[in-house]
Amino acid sequence: MSEQIDSPHGDVMVEELRLAQELAGAGTRATSPDIAEYALRLGDDALILSQQLGAWISRAPELEEDVALGNIALDLLGHARSLLHFAGSFDGRSEDDLAYFRDEPEFRCAWIVQQPNGDFAQTIARQFVVATYMFELYSALRSSSDATIAAIAEKAIKEVDYHRDHSVQWMLRLAGGTDESRRRITRAVGDVWPYVDELFRDDDLIERLGDAAVRPSALRAGFDAVVETVFTEAELAIPSVAASSAGGRHGSHASALGHILAEMQVLARRHPGATW
Amino acid sequence: MSEQIDSPHGDVMVEELRLAQELAGAGTRATSPDIAEYALRLGDDALILSQQLGAWISRAPELEEDVALGNIALDLLGHARSLLHFAGSFDGRSEDDLAYFRDEPEFRCAWIVQQPNGDFAQTIARQFVVATYMFELYSALRSSSDATIAAIAEKAIKEVDYHRDHSVQWMLRLAGGTDESRRRITRAVGDVWPYVDELFRDDDLIERLGDAAVRPSALRAGFDAVVETVFTEAELAIPSVAASSAGGRHGSHASALGHILAEMQVLARRHPGATW
Repeated sequence: MSEQIDSPHGDVMVEELRLAQELAGAGTRATSPDIAEYALRLGDDALILSQQLGAWISRAPELEEDVALGNIALDLLGHARSLLHFAGSFDGRSEDDLAYFRDEPEFRCAWIVQQPNGDFAQTIARQFVVATYMFELYSALRSSSDATIAAIAEKAIKEVDYHRDHSVQWMLRLAGGTDESRRRITRAVGDVWPYVDELFRDDDLIERLGDAAVRPSALRAGFDAVVETVFTEAELAIPSVAASSAGGRHGSHASALGHILAEMQVLARRHPGATW
Repeated sequence: MSEQIDSPHGDVMVEELRLAQELAGAGTRATSPDIAEYALRLGDDALILSQQLGAWISRAPELEEDVALGNIALDLLGHARSLLHFAGSFDGRSEDDLAYFRDEPEFRCAWIVQQPNGDFAQTIARQFVVATYMFELYSALRSSSDATIAAIAEKAIKEVDYHRDHSVQWMLRLAGGTDESRRRITRAVGDVWPYVDELFRDDDLIERLGDAAVRPSALRAGFDAVVETVFTEAELAIPSVAASSAGGRHGSHASALGHILAEMQVLARRHPGATW
């Protein structure tokens, strides 16, 4: 169930060419463990959020929303593949190796993407925070001194722009809808807010990467400006809650990630080598 | 959670215009209960298969396959929306009314789309049968005397062509792969084959519709030709099994559909009126 069995693509060179057409930045190699680790952080955020949103495909409250969340999930999966492919190029691991054969402490995603889908309002509140963050992130990364990161960001930004718009529309609709929808989105914002802080923390890796990365703390002002605009229009208060102890960037995760990984990895792990 | 609450689209006219851009054939009305019933049959096949494939989004054995099955699921959901929108135009029901608020006996899908995902081989065998059938179906329906059905078929055929190619590639890879993959695809073909016959049965509705529809029995030769080519190359035998008693076109379903509908409908039904 991989290129090993009777691949229509023939050989490794052809496969690499095909991936280069499909994945932004494929064909280049990560030049240091630091840049590979950075790509992992970005890729894991996209991968885990994609898995979570995929669960809505058969369960959204409208067919139109099924399609919207499904498309967002697939966009994010595309970003994850490009980023994991690049991260793995440093030590010869494939995107599938990284997605299916790492254990929980090896994942580098932030805690917010691991938060449960909950009701639809909770998915939207989580989506608003992450998409707003990702928009600031990829906007800045288009100027990364690493050409591959810059190319991936350039491709991702258009899609993330739509993801942010989508979540903003729903924030306004739910906040301005019925008493019940307003009660739910208010609660959902309170539930996800403790996980906002982690997205904007600098650390040693970021310092070492210099112009190849972007300081998370430098993205906060842009994020806050969008939040303020949307929350003002929605007449929602920005929660004042303590930040979580989240340590996702260093592999410290809450139990939620274990369940997500179990579901995502079971089939690939049941047939290691992927040939059945 | 629908146009009722603070819709960004303003009013019904604008909403209808927007749908017309989004859905093939939107803006026209089904002119008879027969054509509406026919659209339901086509739409329900696409809808239920889409829901089933959506479950693979977080569970395929490769990230690339996650993306492929996810895209196929979303294509089918697009076809379902167009067809259900058209079916509902006859008596003023929306696509969401039809998807979420019909009970099991009101669904018109064939039994094969209700068969379980099973292992990956079973999904592929089911997919090969349905995509090959749909390719023949939509090819013929491009000449339907009903302009809306013809327009929907014209748009769907390009996507279904890809779905068929995708499933053929996997049929060949699994049959020509390891002993284990060959064992599994052989078993999977045997499991789905009893449900092939139902797809090609004519009935009174088809007779009444004349040139607006296509006789299912007329599609069988084209289907058989593709099956023979693929099975010959894959060195698989066409199973000789008795046809199931399937009566999906008249609302008689196996228990599998109940579970699929429960999952699909729970959120919409918990909040009827869709305003929370």
